[in-house]
Amino acid sequence: MKAVVYHGPKDVRVDQVADPVIEAPTDVLIRVTTTNICGSDLHMYEGRTSIEPGRVLGHENLGEVIEVGAAVERVRVGDRVCVPFNVSCGYCKNCERGLTAFCLTTNPPSAGAAFGFAGMGPYNGGQAEYLRVPHGDFMCLTLPPERPDKEIDYVMCADIFPTGYHATELAGLRPGESVVVYGAGPVGLMAAYSAIIKGAGRVLVVDLHPDRLRLAEEIGAIPIDYSEASAVEQVLDLTGGEGADRGCECVGFQAHDIACVERPNITLNNLIASVRPTGTIAVVGVFVREDPQAPDRLYRRGEIVFDFGEFWFKGQTMATGQCNVKAYNRRLRDLIADGKASPSFVVSHELPLDEAPEGYQQFDVRKSGWTKVVLHP
Amino acid sequence: MKAVVYHGPKDVRVDQVADPVIEAPTDVLIRVTTTNICGSDLHMYEGRTSIEPGRVLGHENLGEVIEVGAAVERVRVGDRVCVPFNVSCGYCKNCERGLTAFCLTTNPPSAGAAFGFAGMGPYNGGQAEYLRVPHGDFMCLTLPPERPDKEIDYVMCADIFPTGYHATELAGLRPGESVVVYGAGPVGLMAAYSAIIKGAGRVLVVDLHPDRLRLAEEIGAIPIDYSEASAVEQVLDLTGGEGADRGCECVGFQAHDIACVERPNITLNNLIASVRPTGTIAVVGVFVREDPQAPDRLYRRGEIVFDFGEFWFKGQTMATGQCNVKAYNRRLRDLIADGKASPSFVVSHELPLDEAPEGYQQFDVRKSGWTKVVLHP
Amino acid sequence: MKAVVYHGPKDVRVDQVADPVIEAPTDVLIRVTTTNICGSDLHMYEGRTSIEPGRVLGHENLGEVIEVGAAVERVRVGDRVCVPFNVSCGYCKNCERGLTAFCLTTNPPSAGAAFGFAGMGPYNGGQAEYLRVPHGDFMCLTLPPERPDKEIDYVMCADIFPTGYHATELAGLRPGESVVVYGAGPVGLMAAYSAIIKGAGRVLVVDLHPDRLRLAEEIGAIPIDYSEASAVEQVLDLTGGEGADRGCECVGFQAHDIACVERPNITLNNLIASVRPTGTIAVVGVFVREDPQAPDRLYRRGEIVFDFGEFWFKGQTMATGQCNVKAYNRRLRDLIADGKASPSFVVSHELPLDEAPEGYQQFDVRKSGWTKVVLHP
Amino acid sequence: MKAVVYHGPKDVRVDQVADPVIEAPTDVLIRVTTTNICGSDLHMYEGRTSIEPGRVLGHENLGEVIEVGAAVERVRVGDRVCVPFNVSCGYCKNCERGLTAFCLTTNPPSAGAAFGFAGMGPYNGGQAEYLRVPHGDFMCLTLPPERPDKEIDYVMCADIFPTGYHATELAGLRPGESVVVYGAGPVGLMAAYSAIIKGAGRVLVVDLHPDRLRLAEEIGAIPIDYSEASAVEQVLDLTGGEGADRGCECVGFQAHDIACVERPNITLNNLIASVRPTGTIAVVGVFVREDPQAPDRLYRRGEIVFDFGEFWFKGQTMATGQCNVKAYNRRLRDLIADGKASPSFVVSHELPLDEAPEGYQQFDVRKSGWTKVVLHP
Repeated sequence: MKAVVYHGPKDVRVDQVADPVIEAPTDVLIRVTTTNICGSDLHMYEGRTSIEPGRVLGHENLGEVIEVGAAVERVRVGDRVCVPFNVSCGYCKNCERGLTAFCLTTNPPSAGAAFGFAGMGPYNGGQAEYLRVPHGDFMCLTLPPERPDKEIDYVMCADIFPTGYHATELAGLRPGESVVVYGAGPVGLMAAYSAIIKGAGRVLVVDLHPDRLRLAEEIGAIPIDYSEASAVEQVLDLTGGEGADRGCECVGFQAHDIACVERPNITLNNLIASVRPTGTIAVVGVFVREDPQAPDRLYRRGEIVFDFGEFWFKGQTMATGQCNVKAYNRRLRDLIADGKASPSFVVSHELPLDEAPEGYQQFDVRKSGWTKVVLHP
Repeated sequence: MKAVVYHGPKDVRVDQVADPVIEAPTDVLIRVTTTNICGSDLHMYEGRTSIEPGRVLGHENLGEVIEVGAAVERVRVGDRVCVPFNVSCGYCKNCERGLTAFCLTTNPPSAGAAFGFAGMGPYNGGQAEYLRVPHGDFMCLTLPPERPDKEIDYVMCADIFPTGYHATELAGLRPGESVVVYGAGPVGLMAAYSAIIKGAGRVLVVDLHPDRLRLAEEIGAIPIDYSEASAVEQVLDLTGGEGADRGCECVGFQAHDIACVERPNITLNNLIASVRPTGTIAVVGVFVREDPQAPDRLYRRGEIVFDFGEFWFKGQTMATGQCNVKAYNRRLRDLIADGKASPSFVVSHELPLDEAPEGYQQFDVRKSGWTKVVLHP
Repeated sequence: MKAVVYHGPKDVRVDQVADPVIEAPTDVLIRVTTTNICGSDLHMYEGRTSIEPGRVLGHENLGEVIEVGAAVERVRVGDRVCVPFNVSCGYCKNCERGLTAFCLTTNPPSAGAAFGFAGMGPYNGGQAEYLRVPHGDFMCLTLPPERPDKEIDYVMCADIFPTGYHATELAGLRPGESVVVYGAGPVGLMAAYSAIIKGAGRVLVVDLHPDRLRLAEEIGAIPIDYSEASAVEQVLDLTGGEGADRGCECVGFQAHDIACVERPNITLNNLIASVRPTGTIAVVGVFVREDPQAPDRLYRRGEIVFDFGEFWFKGQTMATGQCNVKAYNRRLRDLIADGKASPSFVVSHELPLDEAPEGYQQFDVRKSGWTKVVLHP
Repeated sequence: MKAVVYHGPKDVRVDQVADPVIEAPTDVLIRVTTTNICGSDLHMYEGRTSIEPGRVLGHENLGEVIEVGAAVERVRVGDRVCVPFNVSCGYCKNCERGLTAFCLTTNPPSAGAAFGFAGMGPYNGGQAEYLRVPHGDFMCLTLPPERPDKEIDYVMCADIFPTGYHATELAGLRPGESVVVYGAGPVGLMAAYSAIIKGAGRVLVVDLHPDRLRLAEEIGAIPIDYSEASAVEQVLDLTGGEGADRGCECVGFQAHDIACVERPNITLNNLIASVRPTGTIAVVGVFVREDPQAPDRLYRRGEIVFDFGEFWFKGQTMATGQCNVKAYNRRLRDLIADGKASPSFVVSHELPLDEAPEGYQQFDVRKSGWTKVVLHP
């Protein structure tokens, strides 16, 4: 089959690779019909991770079931399913509590596995014609058969819609409260969109890319362009000097300051300053344990300089980590099915699989207008 | 009246000062019968804060009501009351949600006030014969008249018992889970004690003072002496290599490493390593926004080097801040009244007010056997 | 001053009564500018409660502060404030936990007091020119000075908007879930509106008054007319046979069946049948302990025949009680201020105080088009 | 193999039946070493349910794994495991949220399945030499190999310990609060024991069997004998007239009044009277949808006369249903392993399987001293 394969920094190619097969009786095979490029793929694309050449990328996948293992009871051939990015078993100590992003059996001794992801187990991704899905009955979110036109909405349930929603959950956001989101990439936009769905009061989104800020504004958020003035001061101005009730970090370790210098702590410390005392800050942007090529020397071993005195004195809470997709994907799917949510507003480009390398390149340089790339194998 | 007054670093004296009076119709005056020296008083005693000479110290207070303002309805002259360390109004946005440690009206524009505390408003402390308590109806916890012998248990409801309990709440501890507590000072011991009351499974307490570790063991915790071997490794050994479910920081910014060097980030990063993925870390040890005399250069402006990559990758949460005493003090009082809790096990010394300077000095050097000093004016 | 006074069943009049005065130093006096007739006023109007002749009615009040007691610190003369229907102290065991609908000091030995309400203490209501508000600093919700035109939105924060919201909170509604609301009176509409604000999936509203069902539809809910077919069957049909995730009872003890017979248990048992296993049912419709005139013999002493076997077997939860208005009114006010909510869509009539008797009469017979009556003294 | 088979009302026999076999690749077979008679077995024993003759009873099972299906990955032959009474799949809408007592796939179209239980699917019970366990990886709780002597503690994790704990969770019990438990049978004792483990303040247990009340007292609860005086009045007396903070119903539909008349509503209405305003009542005693032989006419179709007016006016919540065992059994197992809990204190008799009929008979008549019967096949 054809698949998007990592060859090295800024070098992904569409190669012919072996078709996946059923390996365990609980496996499911799907023919991928829609698969996205994720902002977190770019960390791998840029060579900033330990991903090995030869791996198929892609963790935001949707397709049709074409074969099921002997132990699969629920999922059937012909079902259209959206697959969470986390590979999880359903029966370990973490999965049984819903913490599927920290599955203890699919990538031991680490907690957590993912498709096509550095450090998250041996699983190939779904930027390909076919995908093997372990633990099919537990993993697959079945989609309603009507409305196949909503496929680019439903595919967002694999990662970025639940991840954005997760940010608002970790942040403890309640209706009527204000929230500031740092980062207007796809995940930041999904966090803002989730906040609006949940009835947030004021939703502030900080970025400097005008096309992304425009999308934020279109969904009802207040855009804050930090190329114009200090983000923190703008947030304080818009919240009566007090700070937002809640904050979401949706950028990750490759955050840049206004001078385009990579500073992994900048959004975190800005959030501490932007959020009111007793507020909660959610961090869903990716941070890693080792980053040998980091320009910031401390961060090479995963450390940052943190405004802890301020954080503590304000009595804030910081909640982090990858999204437990299954905790939310049923309800988000239902919002799409009921016409209450349409997260595909972030999609700027739908490309055939063959054009994936072009998609990676343009998305990586944040070329204006390239907000989110969807591939159709 | 006589009162313990701050004169300068390591210089507190029992002076004659003016008696407090009713200043607002919601005030209550109490005759203090029991008042403690707190570990957080030592930051002030050592001159590491902005506390000004002349202030009366003491925020763990219990006494008898001797006068009430014209608007006081509930509290009556003769009531024995325990007073939360936080001064709070009861009607601001934070107080009405129970976040009394972050009251918005008693120390504006900051959030949070306290008796006799640096940076927490103009309120004199209760290491004195009398104390003025603002917002008496909201502030005072009335004690049962029977069993006056339990006064040194009840006085712990002013701060350290609720603060230790708060640590277990912030950490989200549930029955049967394991928890590691860094610090076996009075607050750490109260956190361990609260964990045991709540039905924790394994409770691990890290310190190097044998007398304190012995107390931890006596209440049913497992003492971990980090002068013998790495605290983190011992915790991992005792939790099957996985880490504890929950963690509590009960040391604060004056944490020391094994070589007795002050390192404000050491307990925090040890906790990240000691707690399992998805676990929550509570920080009730005090950290400040500025510490001009800090040996650690970064910490002079409140910054620390934080293992953020590890923290994020493990999907941990860190919850911080001073305790909202009123959120817990009724229930803790009832546990004492019902004979289910007796937090006075931490008390090593009961002294008359005149001997407060001696108490400060011995407690400050962590002299063996000086775990907790109670003063009786 | 002029005030709406209860004289007997279906007999309210606008009388001259004595002006209220400051009675306690924590009192506040307001000049009422907007005050509503509530569906729960009709239980009193119809003579189905113990309300005594001579009482001033009205518990949904908004006005301008004209005088404050000596102990009032926060509220100032000239402030525009919305007053929660519950009279509460702020310092009792229930109030300090946010359970202001069950204040222990304002109507002892009962838990809970209200303005102008049977069995809820001696407080006169605000369908009058002036109102005395006890515990002013704790009670008054200050309104933003700009946009006085939003007064009929803000007045809904006194009762029905928080009460409808409370229903969705008690029901544990989460984004994407379905909810069925029994009753499309003002509170039922506010429950549906709150569900939509919170991002519910499918919101079903059961009633038989076409004008009310039309309003439900206009805000995005699905109207269910039980005069056409069984409400339960329609709900099951619209939820794939499973039942709604959550349910809200917004009718109360004077519920009627299709034959117009009063049956106090009908909505409760219909909810048990309409909600899925493990679902939660919120009951904010009013039920009373004694109703000597009830057509249903059991209900004369507050008893109903309840489908408990079904309720238990489905593992449902039922949560009840009056709304703790202060738990929500700040955030709901902010949604109005930010233009995210406009609950005045329920208002059908704005009348001068003198026309209150007419308003009571028409609202009581559920005259078509009389959804909600607002009075302007 | 030998198994306890239901033949008809008050007629169970130890018969030879066919050995169970692996039927699905996710199945696990265990050799049962310990299995209990449960109070809920008595409803079947007495012929008050629809259980069909020929079924093997027993839903509290522990044993050794002797065979695993081809898809089983985690559980291994030789493991000692405790099996939750609920049969659940792990991947349906309810299971993935932890609501395993309401599994949607193991007993469709009902929600919830159990071993050897009327109306809960076709599964044979484990009062037998061998047991087939569906969904073995998800279902089996692995026990620590050391300390086989704790087997009669661990077997309580199959049902009554988690069910008693569930009562305290549904009731929302927090440390320091008071709780009243109706029923001192094995489940009621486990509820009281769980409350004590969790740090409850006052734990009141209502029954009239002296042997059971004595056990309640021995674990630290306050026994209330309602044969001496009104249970409600005793509870009110012991809670300052206010009522307990929380309540637990651990009797079920065969509740009897003081005159030994079966009254299915008596404990429920007593709980409404015994619990304070805003309190929560958990109902884990079994109630059924139809009981054709009920002495109470209404209850024949599952209805009871409920003090709803009082319930609503007090703003209480009632939470019900079977226990989701997997939500708690890991943590309860760990408490046993750590020596913090020993639920086997309820065990009065350990019998060989052959003596099961005798055990049923004595337990059914609540013969003094027959608190809990454990069978060893």
